[in-house]
Amino acid sequence: MIPNSTRFLSDLHELRQFGAAGVGKGVVRPAYSAADIAARAWLAGKFEEAGLPPHYDPMGSLFGLADGPSILLGSHSDTQPEGGWLDGALGVIAALEVARAAKEAGGPAVSVVSFQDEEGRFGVTTGSAVWSGSLSLEDADKLTDRDGATLAEARAAMPTASAFVDPSRFTGFIEMHIEQGPWLDEAGEAVGVVTDIVGIRDMRITFEGEQNHAGTTPMHLRRDAFQALGAFNAAINERFRNVVTPQTVWTIGHVKLHPDAHSIVPGSATFSMQWRDRDSTRLARMEEVIREAATQVAREQGVRVSFGQMLGLEPVQMDAKLRGVLEESAEQSAARSWRKMPSGALHDATNVSRHMPVAMLFVPSINGISHAFEEDTSEADLITGLEVLAGAVAQLG
Amino acid sequence: MIPNSTRFLSDLHELRQFGAAGVGKGVVRPAYSAADIAARAWLAGKFEEAGLPPHYDPMGSLFGLADGPSILLGSHSDTQPEGGWLDGALGVIAALEVARAAKEAGGPAVSVVSFQDEEGRFGVTTGSAVWSGSLSLEDADKLTDRDGATLAEARAAMPTASAFVDPSRFTGFIEMHIEQGPWLDEAGEAVGVVTDIVGIRDMRITFEGEQNHAGTTPMHLRRDAFQALGAFNAAINERFRNVVTPQTVWTIGHVKLHPDAHSIVPGSATFSMQWRDRDSTRLARMEEVIREAATQVAREQGVRVSFGQMLGLEPVQMDAKLRGVLEESAEQSAARSWRKMPSGALHDATNVSRHMPVAMLFVPSINGISHAFEEDTSEADLITGLEVLAGAVAQLG
Repeated sequence: MIPNSTRFLSDLHELRQFGAAGVGKGVVRPAYSAADIAARAWLAGKFEEAGLPPHYDPMGSLFGLADGPSILLGSHSDTQPEGGWLDGALGVIAALEVARAAKEAGGPAVSVVSFQDEEGRFGVTTGSAVWSGSLSLEDADKLTDRDGATLAEARAAMPTASAFVDPSRFTGFIEMHIEQGPWLDEAGEAVGVVTDIVGIRDMRITFEGEQNHAGTTPMHLRRDAFQALGAFNAAINERFRNVVTPQTVWTIGHVKLHPDAHSIVPGSATFSMQWRDRDSTRLARMEEVIREAATQVAREQGVRVSFGQMLGLEPVQMDAKLRGVLEESAEQSAARSWRKMPSGALHDATNVSRHMPVAMLFVPSINGISHAFEEDTSEADLITGLEVLAGAVAQLG
Repeated sequence: MIPNSTRFLSDLHELRQFGAAGVGKGVVRPAYSAADIAARAWLAGKFEEAGLPPHYDPMGSLFGLADGPSILLGSHSDTQPEGGWLDGALGVIAALEVARAAKEAGGPAVSVVSFQDEEGRFGVTTGSAVWSGSLSLEDADKLTDRDGATLAEARAAMPTASAFVDPSRFTGFIEMHIEQGPWLDEAGEAVGVVTDIVGIRDMRITFEGEQNHAGTTPMHLRRDAFQALGAFNAAINERFRNVVTPQTVWTIGHVKLHPDAHSIVPGSATFSMQWRDRDSTRLARMEEVIREAATQVAREQGVRVSFGQMLGLEPVQMDAKLRGVLEESAEQSAARSWRKMPSGALHDATNVSRHMPVAMLFVPSINGISHAFEEDTSEADLITGLEVLAGAVAQLG
């Protein structure tokens, strides 16, 4: 089959218009936002044109379904609060183009998906987590975003069906995505075939101290929630040294103080704690360090600590057969310009692996930048990635 | 003269209804909010009734003016985002009651004021700073609150005159206020006569690093703005040890990360840095430590640092004569139950001292709590404070 790279690039740029940030190719299209819902309506039309009847599942994940058994391709079309134009959108449009090319070539049968809330406005890869059964719809509905909105309220704003698509109709899942890291770009390579996806843990932690006057409360009498956060951050940075590998990462990306005023000793500090690694045992050891450090800091500083619900996904190995066809196809389309590599980023493929064989394909991220307006990939690399994906699917026919 | 404590307490509770938080006696009445503007309109009516023609100056500070030369009493009626019912409101209503009692007694002449934005939504004691000339109206208009609103926009929402009141019509200024600290309450004393007010410095600092993916960006390649803040906080806590006294305080009360998401390495961190001390030299030395530490952390972590405009007020001695009459009056109304003490909190009296003799009177804060809904003072202490203020003013007659 021969994918049409012009049609592929044109659709990719058209999708970028939904939530265009007006800064470079940046996009603001968080899950369930008006821009996200409009983009999915546009995608549903494209699926229809391609002869793939569109189906919104109860979470708002959008499928384009081939008749009978098929390979499932896709990713997600929602973005971070400040995202790039490719991220998950690339995998969705590449899937659409390969499905069209396969139909034109008389097979094999290809279905397409854009999962909802991969970027975790409410949880972690929420749409595929519910579809795969690792999170119940009831529990998902109770999740809240940073502003306190519930997922139940958010999904009520878009078209959804009452029924989930039966995973058994799919023979496997291949997700094409940007690397989101520096390695392919630094090496000048065009393609990465993923060996495994790291596991992730994510929770909110709150320190509650005593809100008081910033001029009249002596330092030795303060129970300052921000100072507790500072001590906690220093403690885990120190203690992780004996636990982590150079590939392990951890991040405090969200902080909310209360009442958040210059002249008031902060009464509470709520923050996000996220950590990732290829080894479940290490993830669990890091959780112990986090809980011990937070509890000790709270005791030493006379504040209370509380831990939110922990969301997480286990590390996952890619399927040997699907990996094999991707490696063969990469060698054909990008000889000596591809590598095998782990994924440091989380992807919907992790959830989907509960029900079928999964594999992933990476293209380079310029300067390793993603989750930012500056995110980009050269057109040549985008097209090479499309060809590798199409070549792999052709071998499955 | 005999102040009417019933009338005083009743007015104090009536004022509390403007912006009542519904939590204990808590009040939410920030400067220029609808509740603040309504409270000032109510006060203007009270001044009118008391035979004190009301005058809003260009900043929205509200005066009740006696004919000819007079002593000025008062404080402020705006509150913190989460404030108590007394704070500045106590000094305004006590001033109103003493002015009424003085009129009934045939003198002396007393004027009353409620300054605008003492709590620093836009700056630091902004209303009295502009009135005293330490900040120009033009510069004040450019100040912004945490949400980016300008003071020019805020003051346009309330009635203001084009003319400032001439400070030379006042022979001095006495401000009654809650202590906002633990000392009087712990000692079981009723009244504090202030000897001096600490100086304050306040600025916003921003670290700018590189926003990136929290899963694929190795720790050693990160330029994490929150980690820079953590290192800065640890550095000043350590270095201040050799600079400060047990009375010195410093606070990081406001923190804003960008984009503030779980899965993104923070690209920027903007935070408030405020410090207070009785000694200008020490305040300056602390500023050096802050700028040096922030610059060093920025260099070490590969981020950029920028410093906002520094707002500040110098330490101020209270006027000997006014202090004397307050001490005499305290000895009469609260024999052996009062003390001389410094003010750790900043007050409008600091600005007013540029133009006239100033003095201050404190009543206890239960458990030293203020700038919180729980702030309170016993009725007996409120009334004793009122009597001490009235007695002092009577001696000036």
